[in-house]
Amino acid sequence: MLQQIGKTAKLASYQLAQCSTTIKNHTLMVIADLLEQHSASILSANEKDIQAAKKQGLNEAILDRLLLTPERLTSIANDVRKVVSLTDPIGQVIDGSILDNGLKLQRHRVPLGVIGVIYEARPNVTIDIAALCLKTGNAAILRGGKETINTNAAIIAVIQKALKQVGLPQTAVQCINDPDRKYVHELLKLDKYVDMIIPRGGASLHKLCREHSTIPVITGGIGVCHIFVDETADFDKALPIIVNAKTQRPSTCNTLETLLVHRNIAKQFLPKFSQIMADNNVILHADASCYDILKTCTATVFPVKDEELQQEWLSKDLNVLIVDSLELAIEHIREYGTGHSESILTRSLINAEQFVNQVDAAAVYVNASTRFTDGGQFGLGAEVAVSTQKLHARGPMGLEALTTYKWIGYGDDLIRQ
Amino acid sequence: MLQQIGKTAKLASYQLAQCSTTIKNHTLMVIADLLEQHSASILSANEKDIQAAKKQGLNEAILDRLLLTPERLTSIANDVRKVVSLTDPIGQVIDGSILDNGLKLQRHRVPLGVIGVIYEARPNVTIDIAALCLKTGNAAILRGGKETINTNAAIIAVIQKALKQVGLPQTAVQCINDPDRKYVHELLKLDKYVDMIIPRGGASLHKLCREHSTIPVITGGIGVCHIFVDETADFDKALPIIVNAKTQRPSTCNTLETLLVHRNIAKQFLPKFSQIMADNNVILHADASCYDILKTCTATVFPVKDEELQQEWLSKDLNVLIVDSLELAIEHIREYGTGHSESILTRSLINAEQFVNQVDAAAVYVNASTRFTDGGQFGLGAEVAVSTQKLHARGPMGLEALTTYKWIGYGDDLIRQ
Repeated sequence: MLQQIGKTAKLASYQLAQCSTTIKNHTLMVIADLLEQHSASILSANEKDIQAAKKQGLNEAILDRLLLTPERLTSIANDVRKVVSLTDPIGQVIDGSILDNGLKLQRHRVPLGVIGVIYEARPNVTIDIAALCLKTGNAAILRGGKETINTNAAIIAVIQKALKQVGLPQTAVQCINDPDRKYVHELLKLDKYVDMIIPRGGASLHKLCREHSTIPVITGGIGVCHIFVDETADFDKALPIIVNAKTQRPSTCNTLETLLVHRNIAKQFLPKFSQIMADNNVILHADASCYDILKTCTATVFPVKDEELQQEWLSKDLNVLIVDSLELAIEHIREYGTGHSESILTRSLINAEQFVNQVDAAAVYVNASTRFTDGGQFGLGAEVAVSTQKLHARGPMGLEALTTYKWIGYGDDLIRQ
Repeated sequence: MLQQIGKTAKLASYQLAQCSTTIKNHTLMVIADLLEQHSASILSANEKDIQAAKKQGLNEAILDRLLLTPERLTSIANDVRKVVSLTDPIGQVIDGSILDNGLKLQRHRVPLGVIGVIYEARPNVTIDIAALCLKTGNAAILRGGKETINTNAAIIAVIQKALKQVGLPQTAVQCINDPDRKYVHELLKLDKYVDMIIPRGGASLHKLCREHSTIPVITGGIGVCHIFVDETADFDKALPIIVNAKTQRPSTCNTLETLLVHRNIAKQFLPKFSQIMADNNVILHADASCYDILKTCTATVFPVKDEELQQEWLSKDLNVLIVDSLELAIEHIREYGTGHSESILTRSLINAEQFVNQVDAAAVYVNASTRFTDGGQFGLGAEVAVSTQKLHARGPMGLEALTTYKWIGYGDDLIRQ
């Protein structure tokens, strides 16, 4: 089955690569319209998934992610319309010159080809990714969570209807809708047809892809993010940033998970910090010397375990450690960080520069919340994923991350000397 | 063993990342000088490798690749000095702006960190790669062919002596000099410390890395390259390009392996082509309809087998096929090409554009030899490898391919709304 999906996706990708921006935008508008016109069939498919999920006893958070409503569907359709307004990177001439050997050499931005995306039970991702891939002239093979099987089938049917209506191959967007896990493994080996794999899910999915894929994988989305409160920090400025980084949306990958506090200010800082954490219902997990101070303060506090420093809480829990110096803060981040987002709160120019230069992460901040690491916030228009690897794309990935380039050389009947 | 190598390489990489261009260039000059000063020890180690290789009965081509002479060592040292004159990409601000949310966001070019390179019995690669990695502030873990074990040990000793002399950690450049294959597998799983794997070798090495590495791999260097002789081609202009693409250096990955000839000109073109191939000692491998014409011509010709169309000859052998149209030529290239270098010889603007737009390869040429796909020819100064994958880098990889970027956000005590 996957061989056939891969082959037809590759063929479709050749056709998509030749589409003008006008045709691609028209396709997106038709998809948005049809999603609204066929909302009844999509919502009834979604209702089936919701019932099945309830029967299985899935928790409220998953049910909420799974749920489509007329309003949510309209909002998703409008997101597709927003992709229309983004600049199409395809066809851009990146650079070019006439070389000494006489070759007129140019680099042109072209689609990657076929993109495989493996994700959780989020029906909006199905539409988002399809729209971003089509905008950049790529074919997509989608593998959503098994809990959204009916919803995804209904959405893909609508997208394929739109593709047919505009004269593009329906195989440009396909989904693997058999819940058997073996198809994930087959997809990861489909290097003959698939050019890139994007996993969007938890650490175990990323590990699976890294270990089994013969196709280049963009891994990311796992954020054990730190804020270091330097000894020169202004407490009144620092505390709102910490609250924001931890509580603005705790389930996201750019949420603060561990706060590092310079020893010289710990005694003054921690009581105030504890009070504001208590006000925001944040539970603290502290190392021994922090715990000694915090146990007499307002917020709930537990001793922290080493494994808790290595994982995302994705909740209103926060680790707090005291460090003896900026150097040791950087060392801790090197050991425990996932290369996502790290921030320093400081009034010292020298310390800010040292932190920025020596912390190796996709995004490094000075006096700002880690919550900014996001395609929308970075002005990229749309977000494909957040990469924490260093090749191809790092941090929030916009449309450009779905492209590659081709070297084109024009010769005047030219041979190499 | 590898854990220790990985860990110390990562620590060294933090220090290298902070080095100024001046210090890095000085290090390269010291390496070049010490290579010449210690030529006796390097050449005597090389002599041991050569004797062992002769005992094993390795062929002349391998022996020649393995051999170092005083002249070759001087030339390699001069190549290191040339890297000094290349522009250092590290520290470059790629872009930056003040976003609507108030964040001052910049992208800075930074080293990748630790680069693992697996290659064949070519002592020059050991020095080349070490120089390119150091220039870009990366630590390197090198795994050369087992035939060069003594030479590599001597070279690495000299490089580490130079590192020590300039005050940089000797672990910045390390080699795995135990011939046990298990260390290759261990290196491929060292994702905690290694940021990128570059295999430089044959198809089987690339396959091994793709299948077993949990670290991003740059694959490439395999070129089943085609030239399509369009029906509008000027024969007198076409033939020298074909000779150049096939014979200028047959063992390279950008050498022509399969010639596609438009049916409408085959009868006129093939006899002239055969004559010039015979003059250049090229042996032809032809499909049935080509064979019918070529068997009465000058050059030696055999019927071609399908598997011969899928592999590099890397010799003065050339496949020749007749195709009925430009479309079928493109289809053949899609099926049999490795995405390396493809060329069309034509006088038709429309056909040239169709070929350039629809052929999906790292380098696509019009009226030029495929032999141009090379870092030096492309003006990149140095060549790390030639990538035939589409992520991160495509085609010849210069210094920039050894870098990534970091998003740096400066806030005025900024929280996300």
